[in-house]
Parts: sequence; structure tokens; C-alpha cells
Amino acid sequence: MAIKTMDDLFMYGLQDVYYAENQIANIHPEMMAKVTEPALFEYLEHHLDETREQIKRLEQIFQALGQKPQGVTCQAVLGLIEESHELVREIEDKEVLDAAILASAQAIEHYEINRYGTLIAWADQLGHKVTVDQSVLGNFEVVDLLQLNLVETKSQDSRLTALAESKVNRHAAPA
Amino acid sequence: MAIKTMDDLFMYGLQDVYYAENQIANIHPEMMAKVTEPALFEYLEHHLDETREQIKRLEQIFQALGQKPQGVTCQAVLGLIEESHELVREIEDKEVLDAAILASAQAIEHYEINRYGTLIAWADQLGHKVTVDQSVLGNFEVVDLLQLNLVETKSQDSRLTALAESKVNRHAAPA
Repeated sequence: MAIKTMDDLFMYGLQDVYYAENQIANIHPEMMAKVTEPALFEYLEHHLDETREQIKRLEQIFQALGQKPQGVTCQAVLGLIEESHELVREIEDKEVLDAAILASAQAIEHYEINRYGTLIAWADQLGHKVTVDQSVLGNFEVVDLLQLNLVETKSQDSRLTALAESKVNRHAAPA
Repeated sequence: MAIKTMDDLFMYGLQDVYYAENQIANIHPEMMAKVTEPALFEYLEHHLDETREQIKRLEQIFQALGQKPQGVTCQAVLGLIEESHELVREIEDKEVLDAAILASAQAIEHYEINRYGTLIAWADQLGHKVTVDQSVLGNFEVVDLLQLNLVETKSQDSRLTALAESKVNRHAAPA
């Protein structure tokens, strides 16, 4: 796509994160098949549900802006996913593998936190006040939907930090 | 490399971020040649200096742990850099390009924040208390050096947010 204006750049960013969220949803089964720690499995299960909700919100934003939801290849997320595959292939020890999978999951959260932060700043500047009917919850603006995705992602990041400190890293490297 | 223990995983993470910081240093000239906003140019100039300092600290950590400093290909940072190249090639408008370069720079900061956060958690758990002589400033532990890199990176991230809000996004999409 040709990027000539900030509106184009915003749309490119939206397509980029839409592609990324779909790729992220797709790697959950492999990660879930490999983890040992039950709390990490639960995290991934919950994260997959949230990822699907976040994809729906992105689709609502595309629709509100009169665009068809579509992705554009995001090299950054492909790199993160490739790295995660490599670690899963390389590591045999179950507890070290849990620590590596947790780190990969957290790298993905940080990627998302960054993308939503940037998209919110751009949407704010562009004044994207288009409202989206969420039926049960009432009307949301484009920025609100991005904020919901950001807040959920930050909360997942904190949950992973707590899980690393309380369980996964301790089990992988007993003091 | 074979990753069998948390010590191996920590060393892999160190090599990964060492490779990434070197790649990040290498893309500065291209970004600096393309930016228009003087404050963004200054940011990149300062960030290049800091990246070189951060690379030195990583080398001190390798040495303190009795290892030769070396990198391992980091697909995630290569993805971020490839995305940045694509945007620089695609965008002609100078102010939109500044906004895209700032977003790329911030994606890189978030990548670094994530990696240093993970390495610090692992080093803490492994009890890496090896001290490194920093002559002027006194002795540092491995974790302290990683913390210095993390604190600098977080500060650069905040600086970019302020720069986006006060100048770059405003210029690219006047209200």
C-alpha cells in the first residue's frame, strides 16, 4: 500500500497489528502443548480468548472506518514467533522450556503494548471519534477500543511477571 | 547452542540482545539520514551513543561470566529493522516519515525493555553476583549493569512519547 498521509500510516498500523494478533492466536496451540506449569497453561488459555476478543475489536475499528478488515505482513511478529519456535525445538528440560515460553509470551505482550500505544497516539492526533456500537456495553470510539486492547495487554504482562517470579523461574533455577 | 539449563538460557538471552544492540547501532545512520525534525535527529544521535555504551556493558557482563562476547541471530530485531526499512522506502512525505521513524525507534525501545526485564529476572534468580570493575564508578554486579541498560531504555522510551506528542505527530497530522 502507498503511505502518503497519517491516515494511511494509521491504517497500515491497524493492518499490521491485525495480522500480528492473528499470527499470535495461531501459535497458542503449539505453546500450550509444550508447557508443564499449570498456571502458565491457564495463562495461555486465557490469553488466547483475549486475543480473539482483541481481533474482534480491531474488526470493529476497520468497519467503523469504512474499511474491510485485512492484515499486512508484520516482520516483527514473525521474528518473535520464529524465535519462539526455535526455543521450543532446542530445549528439552521442561522447566527451562517453561521459562523460555514465558519469556516469548512476554516479548509478544511488549510488542502489542508498543503497537497499541502508537496506534492510540496516532488515532488521538487524527481525532478518530467514530463510534462503534458494542450493543451490550454501549458506544465506543475507535480510541476506546484500542485502549481496551492496551489495558488488557498490560494486565497480561503483569500477570506474566508475577508468574515468572512466583513459579516458573524459581522452578527452572532453584535457589 | 544447546540450551539445557537456565544458565544456558541466560547466556542465549545475553547473546541475543548483544546481537540486537549491534544491529540497532547499525541502522542509526539510515534513520538519521532520513529524519527532518531536529529533535528526532538529536534523539537518534543520543540513542546511538547510549547503544554503544550498552554494548560495552554487555561485553563487561560476558567477561565477568568468563565468556567471549558474541551474538546469536535475533529474528525479532531483524523483523523490526526490516519493517523500518520498508517504511523508509515507502513513505515520501517528510512529516509522515518522521512519525513512522519515531514509531520504529519506539518499537525497538520496547523490544529492549522486554529483553532487559527478562534477563534481569533470570540473573536475579540465578544469583549472578559477579562483580565488574567500572573503575570510575566502582564495582557493579551483572544485574546492576543490566538495570542500567533497562533504566536508560525506559527513559528513552518516555522521551520518544513526549517527542511524538509535542512535535512529530502534531506536524504529521495537524489538528
